[in-house]
Amino acid sequence: MNKIEHLGIAVADAEKAKKIFDKLLNKSSYKAEKVEFEGVSTHFYELGPNKLELLEATGPDSPIAKFLAKNREGFHHVAIAVDNIFSEMGRLKKEGFVFINDKPKEGADNKLIAFIHPKSVNGMLVELCQDKI
Amino acid sequence: MNKIEHLGIAVADAEKAKKIFDKLLNKSSYKAEKVEFEGVSTHFYELGPNKLELLEATGPDSPIAKFLAKNREGFHHVAIAVDNIFSEMGRLKKEGFVFINDKPKEGADNKLIAFIHPKSVNGMLVELCQDKI
Repeated sequence: MNKIEHLGIAVADAEKAKKIFDKLLNKSSYKAEKVEFEGVSTHFYELGPNKLELLEATGPDSPIAKFLAKNREGFHHVAIAVDNIFSEMGRLKKEGFVFINDKPKEGADNKLIAFIHPKSVNGMLVELCQDKI
Repeated sequence: MNKIEHLGIAVADAEKAKKIFDKLLNKSSYKAEKVEFEGVSTHFYELGPNKLELLEATGPDSPIAKFLAKNREGFHHVAIAVDNIFSEMGRLKKEGFVFINDKPKEGADNKLIAFIHPKSVNGMLVELCQDKI
């Protein structure tokens, strides 16, 4: 567990949100990436060793659309950088943590990712992520 | 805007939550601090350059108790480290951001802090914090 890699923020309208975050952080988003099979359009901001990731739904079936139907905009997940996602998943499963995806999958930003179920972590959606080699 | 200083996590029962976070992060909380006038009892975890801060209410009038009456446990705020909280507050006020406390105040962990209203930042409670010199 190395650092907060990024904080995922659900937004209804990325263009509108980018105007706010550009002002907040006093800089522009450095990368936009659409992950079609995840149903998300992402915009990344650098914040020193960390990133903020704005998440906009690509359609009504997107997990972000479903999230925003039940929750307000804002905090969606925190991603923690790990050196070896396979060994960390193994360790955490033994400790009783439940994963949403049982095996690491490809995510945005050239990462292998896995989500821990919020029920395992005080209601907080936690992503583990490892740079793809 | 230097980094995510910490992520504040509202919990109903800190002792119970610590057991979960000890396992998640594979380490123990390195510091506990009660901030009586803020109505919070905090437990800090190191996560590389970042921290996670568990927030438990000290009583029914605590902002955390009020938060948990309306929201589930989990994400409460993100704190961003700045070099000069006074100049950043000035810059952001000019940009139209509304602060909950108009002037920096003393927070946990030897910091000067100020909270931006969630309505200004897509529903997300953002804290600015600067180390006290």
